[in-house]
Amino acid sequence: MEKFEITILGCGSATPSPKHYTSSQVVEVRGKLFMVDCGEGTQIQLRRSRVAFARINHIFISHLHGDHCFGLLGMISSFGLLGRTAPLYIHAPQELEPMLSQEMAFYCRDLEFTVEFQGFDPAATTVVYDDRSLTVTSFPLRHRVPCAGFLFREKPTSDHLDRAAADFYGVPQWDYNRIKEGGDFTAPDGTVVPHDRLTKPADPGRSYAYCCDTAYNPSMIPVIKGADMIYHDCTYSEDDADRARKHFHSTATDAARTAAEAGAGKLMLGHFSARYPDENILLEEAQQIFKDTILAKENLTVTI
Amino acid sequence: MEKFEITILGCGSATPSPKHYTSSQVVEVRGKLFMVDCGEGTQIQLRRSRVAFARINHIFISHLHGDHCFGLLGMISSFGLLGRTAPLYIHAPQELEPMLSQEMAFYCRDLEFTVEFQGFDPAATTVVYDDRSLTVTSFPLRHRVPCAGFLFREKPTSDHLDRAAADFYGVPQWDYNRIKEGGDFTAPDGTVVPHDRLTKPADPGRSYAYCCDTAYNPSMIPVIKGADMIYHDCTYSEDDADRARKHFHSTATDAARTAAEAGAGKLMLGHFSARYPDENILLEEAQQIFKDTILAKENLTVTI
Repeated sequence: MEKFEITILGCGSATPSPKHYTSSQVVEVRGKLFMVDCGEGTQIQLRRSRVAFARINHIFISHLHGDHCFGLLGMISSFGLLGRTAPLYIHAPQELEPMLSQEMAFYCRDLEFTVEFQGFDPAATTVVYDDRSLTVTSFPLRHRVPCAGFLFREKPTSDHLDRAAADFYGVPQWDYNRIKEGGDFTAPDGTVVPHDRLTKPADPGRSYAYCCDTAYNPSMIPVIKGADMIYHDCTYSEDDADRARKHFHSTATDAARTAAEAGAGKLMLGHFSARYPDENILLEEAQQIFKDTILAKENLTVTI
Repeated sequence: MEKFEITILGCGSATPSPKHYTSSQVVEVRGKLFMVDCGEGTQIQLRRSRVAFARINHIFISHLHGDHCFGLLGMISSFGLLGRTAPLYIHAPQELEPMLSQEMAFYCRDLEFTVEFQGFDPAATTVVYDDRSLTVTSFPLRHRVPCAGFLFREKPTSDHLDRAAADFYGVPQWDYNRIKEGGDFTAPDGTVVPHDRLTKPADPGRSYAYCCDTAYNPSMIPVIKGADMIYHDCTYSEDDADRARKHFHSTATDAARTAAEAGAGKLMLGHFSARYPDENILLEEAQQIFKDTILAKENLTVTI
């Protein structure tokens, strides 16, 4: 199976702490690297990780709080100093464009690559990236400012050929691809052998939902339904539920309810407040509702 | 003796590397904390150090390359989130003001403290800070863009009273301070006892010169003459002297010559290129010219 991996660069909230960097992670799908959020220090974490710095071509920004984007200018500047020539695509709320353009004009005058800003509306559900094998969809979260989650979904591969059936009906090799992609086979005597008899269904595409910085948000369930993994805001424990409501963040319970309602495969908790010396209390709280839960931590890589 | 300490938060050049953070340090003089430069990740380093985050009231920025100022916005934002109310003074090249104002208007809308921007001209030698016991003077360095060094100089204390002499001449206690600050004593019989006979000279003020990002720059010698410690650009070794000239940086030899010519007490090398796996080659090169040299490193604290 092709690689589909998430590497956590930072999973703390608000400000960097001695324990956590602020939000950033890298999603690798079939050899392509995508960065999601870029808090201060992201490039530091990235260069300590095994992730190939220069292979990141797309950066997705969920919202314009500093702990999710203060590392962006430094990344762009360092890409320049390190001799990057490939275009870099920034997918972010449209509001960021004028600010980032001014900052780049001031600080990054001699870049030898272009920064392609691709703004989106965080209040809408939108396909923000699409290629042959992957779609990234932004969807609205419930936060103090406009804020988006991102769903990374592999496109299903073509169906698998049933070699025994193909041989039995005399399908020539040059016709395999057409049949895998949905075609029927017409034998020399005119008999039509339907596609379904010659193939086994493709693997469904895997999917990963990034839901950082949101209050409990049932409206996103239809979008993230069936995700193999959900990364979810878990700033607080249920003991601090009032604080969570006030700041439009989630408790471990909120995150676990969401994973259960979405029928997710796995839940990864993140965006931790610095107030919990031991985050296992968050893990235990979530696991009472949704068993297959793990804690994010810096430099953790998980396979979807 | 009152505290006069330098704590290195970052001493790498250009971009953060697995080995070094970019430029930042904290100068503590008599209980007051001053930050010099603020590269990306400075607040991360600061919270890992023993330096009291909230006690920093003044930040000095040498020039507007990202590795010296990309951490500033994050620091300001985090001060806000952590409930700061005391004004924060930013001393930086005037050119920074409009950019920083716009960034703050965009990212830091609800600060409960004021950021007082105090611009200076990096091409001039200027007193940028002055209080009862300390003066900070900016002076021009030789870099690709306008760039300043900073000289921290303690003001001399008043002279020390010679208690034995004071008793001998019958000086009353209530008159001590006047005499320490330069006065003569007139005895009841009209005899004038001169100041020098009643006191020993004050300790000369200690001084620290920050000379980061500069080619060899003899024009600054008169300003930093006699500094107890000089922190100097040492991006390259003499083997890479061409590169140093090209980028307006110094070699270890340039740094050591400067320290020798200034008659410095000590030299601290910093702003290292990532190209040297072992910086001891820089240290050895400098020590051939100026013996009392050390290497900067993250979290090192030295006393002046």
